[in-house]
Amino acid sequence: MKSLDFFLIRAQVKKKIKWVKITDMSQYIMGKNCLFEVLRATPERIIEVHTTHRPGDELYDQLKKAGIRIKEIGKKGLTNLVDSESHQGYVAKVRPREFVEVHNFLQEDHKLVLMLDSIFDPHNLGAILRAAECFGVDLVVYSKNRGTDITPVVSKTSVGASELVPMARVSNLAETVKQFQKADYWAVAAELSERSQPLSGFEWPEKTLLIMGSEGKGVQQILSRKADFHLEIPMHGQIDSLNVSQATAVLLASKVLNSI
Amino acid sequence: MKSLDFFLIRAQVKKKIKWVKITDMSQYIMGKNCLFEVLRATPERIIEVHTTHRPGDELYDQLKKAGIRIKEIGKKGLTNLVDSESHQGYVAKVRPREFVEVHNFLQEDHKLVLMLDSIFDPHNLGAILRAAECFGVDLVVYSKNRGTDITPVVSKTSVGASELVPMARVSNLAETVKQFQKADYWAVAAELSERSQPLSGFEWPEKTLLIMGSEGKGVQQILSRKADFHLEIPMHGQIDSLNVSQATAVLLASKVLNSI
Repeated sequence: MKSLDFFLIRAQVKKKIKWVKITDMSQYIMGKNCLFEVLRATPERIIEVHTTHRPGDELYDQLKKAGIRIKEIGKKGLTNLVDSESHQGYVAKVRPREFVEVHNFLQEDHKLVLMLDSIFDPHNLGAILRAAECFGVDLVVYSKNRGTDITPVVSKTSVGASELVPMARVSNLAETVKQFQKADYWAVAAELSERSQPLSGFEWPEKTLLIMGSEGKGVQQILSRKADFHLEIPMHGQIDSLNVSQATAVLLASKVLNSI
Repeated sequence: MKSLDFFLIRAQVKKKIKWVKITDMSQYIMGKNCLFEVLRATPERIIEVHTTHRPGDELYDQLKKAGIRIKEIGKKGLTNLVDSESHQGYVAKVRPREFVEVHNFLQEDHKLVLMLDSIFDPHNLGAILRAAECFGVDLVVYSKNRGTDITPVVSKTSVGASELVPMARVSNLAETVKQFQKADYWAVAAELSERSQPLSGFEWPEKTLLIMGSEGKGVQQILSRKADFHLEIPMHGQIDSLNVSQATAVLLASKVLNSI
């Protein structure tokens, strides 16, 4: 993978191409609301901000006031930096995210964990993380090997939730389900199948590991077989399922608000 | 607005630019799942399909079997046709959507209407329409003048719901709220404000007009003042709101599933 700094340097130095150390894409976040949230909640995470904006812009001024280093840059340079045009003029380089170790998490008293079985669309992942943050999910678990990683698009779509929600990256989701079950969590797989029970009337276990599957394919068999409950959102139209980020929001709302 | 046929013709004839009559963008829909749904539910809507695929592809073969005219086309031509790269190799020209007149709708016995107060992001609108279709919303009302129209991106994100859900386009949302109230609907505005009550415990009226506001700005004052109820989804994190399409899914789920 090419370094992102490489793109930046190329944008600035023009034609004098220089290779620098490989940088993890996840060190960059972007988008106005995303930066507003991270600035508000964890300003210490922000190393520096690259922007096409100038003093007088609200976010620019708040970043300046917080003593964060700002580098003004052209639109094209910013686009190259994150390989996306959706930056809204703001990209921040942030300190690497600290991931949670599942065995440490299980030492503490928590209730609600969301497991993502391979979400491939960064917009979906971002929206799911936003819902997870909004509903106070204690941990999001996802696979190191499958699905999208936390890209700048994810950070933007999540409006910063990608930086606020505790996350664990694991190499084996099935083993992790077992780990949670041993610690008195009940695994609830969201799926549309013959063994699924409808959401209406479902009594959520106090300690829940909610498993959401990938777009199109759903929860993989190996995880579904391990689940204690299989849950579906009853549909009343011709299309048989919501978007995975909407389904996640509905299920989390049901669990947390108890109102669906 | 340039005709879309113009783009098509330019793609085919190269440099021999020709202007044809102005075509409404909403006559095109795109995406595999979108076409699958429309083919299944209302095949008579499809006039012809432009595709980069060849016989042997599942959707191609189904379209052929249904007797629909198929035009094979290059990827670039297809992208120009809908001004988007998200077509997944399939674009259909469809017969113009028939909009519902509110006064006709009110003659019939319905229960659940979703009013969209200016959704600007086509992905959000598409996801909202998908949720509306999934939860059996009887009608979606939106403004002729504000927000995005039903573009090919909307059709794709909605996986065809844009072609399946009854819709009314009105010129004055505030007047339309009054029309519904006179017909015994209760207007419920989704908003985060001092007068809002939490979703948990909310008793949905039997006849509901749910009003969702635009991304960022929410429901506009003139509509909010007319609403009978103001409803918020309690948040448990640092970010104060869900994405509008997730919020819509949560509220519709609460209304529809609670009443079963």
